[in-house]
Amino acid sequence: MPLPRQVFVAVIGAGGVGKCFLAQLSSLAQSLSQSPAAPTYLSLIYLSTSKKALLHADYKSQQLSSWESELQASSTAPLPPPQLADYLVKAPGKVILVDNTSNQEVADSYPLFLKKGISIVTPNKKAFSGSYKLWEDIFNVASNGTGANGLGAGGYVFHESSVGAGLPVIVTLKDLIRTGDEIRKIEGVFSGTMSFLFNSFQPTNGGGGKFSAEVKKAKDLGYTEPDPRDDLNGLDVARKLTILARIAGLKVESPTSFPVQSLIPKELESASSGDEFLSRLPEFDGQMDQLKADAEKEDKVVRFVGSIDVQNGDVKVGLEKFDKSHPIAALKGSDNIIAFYTKRYGDNPLIIQGAGAGGDVTAMGVTGDLLRVLRLIR
Amino acid sequence: MPLPRQVFVAVIGAGGVGKCFLAQLSSLAQSLSQSPAAPTYLSLIYLSTSKKALLHADYKSQQLSSWESELQASSTAPLPPPQLADYLVKAPGKVILVDNTSNQEVADSYPLFLKKGISIVTPNKKAFSGSYKLWEDIFNVASNGTGANGLGAGGYVFHESSVGAGLPVIVTLKDLIRTGDEIRKIEGVFSGTMSFLFNSFQPTNGGGGKFSAEVKKAKDLGYTEPDPRDDLNGLDVARKLTILARIAGLKVESPTSFPVQSLIPKELESASSGDEFLSRLPEFDGQMDQLKADAEKEDKVVRFVGSIDVQNGDVKVGLEKFDKSHPIAALKGSDNIIAFYTKRYGDNPLIIQGAGAGGDVTAMGVTGDLLRVLRLIR
Repeated sequence: MPLPRQVFVAVIGAGGVGKCFLAQLSSLAQSLSQSPAAPTYLSLIYLSTSKKALLHADYKSQQLSSWESELQASSTAPLPPPQLADYLVKAPGKVILVDNTSNQEVADSYPLFLKKGISIVTPNKKAFSGSYKLWEDIFNVASNGTGANGLGAGGYVFHESSVGAGLPVIVTLKDLIRTGDEIRKIEGVFSGTMSFLFNSFQPTNGGGGKFSAEVKKAKDLGYTEPDPRDDLNGLDVARKLTILARIAGLKVESPTSFPVQSLIPKELESASSGDEFLSRLPEFDGQMDQLKADAEKEDKVVRFVGSIDVQNGDVKVGLEKFDKSHPIAALKGSDNIIAFYTKRYGDNPLIIQGAGAGGDVTAMGVTGDLLRVLRLIR
Repeated sequence: MPLPRQVFVAVIGAGGVGKCFLAQLSSLAQSLSQSPAAPTYLSLIYLSTSKKALLHADYKSQQLSSWESELQASSTAPLPPPQLADYLVKAPGKVILVDNTSNQEVADSYPLFLKKGISIVTPNKKAFSGSYKLWEDIFNVASNGTGANGLGAGGYVFHESSVGAGLPVIVTLKDLIRTGDEIRKIEGVFSGTMSFLFNSFQPTNGGGGKFSAEVKKAKDLGYTEPDPRDDLNGLDVARKLTILARIAGLKVESPTSFPVQSLIPKELESASSGDEFLSRLPEFDGQMDQLKADAEKEDKVVRFVGSIDVQNGDVKVGLEKFDKSHPIAALKGSDNIIAFYTKRYGDNPLIIQGAGAGGDVTAMGVTGDLLRVLRLIR
C-alpha cells in the first residue's frame, strides 16, 4: 500500500489562465487528499504576479480559498527566478513549478529549475519556441524528453497547453512518435482568433463580412490581443508550429526561421496604435475580397493555416485554399483543428478539434500536466 | 541517475493485432535499450496463441525476430490463466501482460493477474464491457482507476485500443474528468464498418448504392466480420459505449442493458449463414431507401451512431439523421469520430477523428499503453 505523500506547488501568474488554474488546483487538491488508496497532499508554497508574491519561510501551505485577498494585501515582491529556485529546492519534498505567464525571463530559467529537480508545467510558449539552444538546454536536463525517454535526470517538464490549449495535441504527437509511427505532415488551424476571422469572413455556405469588419468584431468580442496586429502577424501560429516541428524531430532554429505570412498590410506596420491600424484597415478590404473571390471560383474557401512537412523539413504559416468539404474549411466558431498525417493513418489523418483558447481549457491542459508529473514523481 | 532496469512482457494472441504489436514491441525494445539516460530492457517471457505457447522455465527472453518460426515449431500448449499467473508472478522483476485476444476467459482472469501485481495492457473489450461486477473487480484491485487515482495496490491496467483503436479517446476522457470538467454528452461513430457502410450508402454529396450492395462490398474488402451480422447487430458499438459510459461514471450493467438498434431484419436473424443472410438482404433494401429518402427531405443524412447522455444517464445505439455539414455526416472512409460535449468546451465539442480499426493502429494503442505502464512502474 503506497504511503500518503506531500507535494509542493509553486505558481507564477494569476491572470486569466492563472485564476482558472488555481480554481482547478483547489478542487484537485481536495480530491487527491481524499483518495482512498494513497492520498496526496498538495501544498501551495509560492504564488506570484508580476508585482506581488505570497510565500512562507517555513513552507506553510497557502490557503487555496483565500489567495486573491491575501495576494492583494501582500507587500512581498516576487522572487527573481534564481532566488525562487533556491527557495523551492529547500522545500521538504518534491516541487512542481507552474508557470502561467508568457514571460521570457521565467522561460529562460527553466533549465535552472529542472537541474535542481524541480518539475515544470506550463502553457508558456516562449520556452519551447524561442532559440533552439534553450530547447536543447531544457530537454538535455529534463527527466522526460520528446522521444521515448528523457536525456537528463532533472525535473519533468510538460507543456500541453502551449499548443491548442487543453486539446490533447502534444501528448498525441508524442505517442505517435514513441510507438514508432512515422509523422509525414501536420496541418491545421492553430489560432482561435484566425479561426474566428476566416470562418466569419468566408463561411462555407456563402456570405461573410468585410475582413476589416470581422477584425473589429473579433476585437470587440475579446478574441484578439489588445493590438490585433499581434494576432495578424502570424507569430503566435509560428510559435506553435515551431514547438510541434521540434517534437517531430525538425531542428527549427526559431519561429522566424521559416516563411510566415503576415496579414498586416505593409503600409500599416508602422501605424502608431491598434486603433489607428483598425481605422485604416478598411482601405485594404479590396485585396482580401479578391482572395475570397479567387477561392470561390474554385469552390473553395480561404483559411489561415500552419503546416509542417516533416519528410521535407518544410514549415510554413499563411493563407491556403480548401475544398468546402475539407475538415479545415468546415471548422466552426473559434475552434482549432490539428491533423496528423502519418504512415499508419495513411490518407485519412488523425484529427483533433475543439476550442484552442480560453482560460478554463488552457488551465485544464496545465492541470492535466500536473497530474502527469504527480504520476511520475515518487 | 536512474539505473538500467529489466521488465518482463507476456503476450497472449498473435493474430492481426498481435502480429503488428510484436513488430512494434521489437522496435520499442531496441530503442528503450539504447536510451542514454536510463536503459530499459524488455524481455518477452511468454507468447501464446490459442493452440501453442513459447516459454522458458528460467525466464530467458524470447528472440523478437524469430517468434513466428519458433512458435510454429513449439509443442507446448498455452497455459490456462491461473497457471500463467503463477508462472509470471515468479519472474525476477515487474511483469506486463499484453492480451491481444478478444477472449472472455482471459478477460475474466484480469483481477487475478492484477492482484498478483501484474500489469495489463489490452485492446480486449470483453473485460470492460461485460458484467459490471467484472469492471468493479478489475478497478478495485488495479493501482490506476478511472478517477484521479486507483483504489487498489495491484498492477496497472490500460485499454486505450478497446475504443477507437489507437485514437486517444480513453486518455482524453480520463483527462477531462480528472481535471474536473463535467462530461455532458459523448456522441460519435464508433465502428469502422458502420462508418464505411453509411458513408457509401448516403454520401453527403448525393448518390450512394443500395444498402445490401454496400454490405457486400464491405465484406469483400474485409471490413466486416466473416458473418456481417456480427457488425450489423450493433453489439460492437454497444460494447464501446458501455466502456466510455462507465468511465464517465454511469453504472451500465451490460452492453445489452440499453437500447441498441440492430440493422438485421427480424426475418434474417435466423438465416443459417452469413452467405444466406447476404443473399436475402436485398429484399429489405426498400426499407433502407425509405430512411435515406426521409433524411434527404430534411437535407440530412443517416448515420449509425452511439451516444451517451451523461446528465440523464441515457445510453443508446442506432440510426440518427445529421445535417450534411455536421462533422459526423462529413466523415470519410471507415473513420471513427468521437465528440465530447463538456461544461468547459460548451456547444462546440472536443472532437477526435481518424481510423478506428486496423492491426497497426490498434497495436499502436496497446504499445502506447505499454509505455504508460513503463513510466508508472519502478
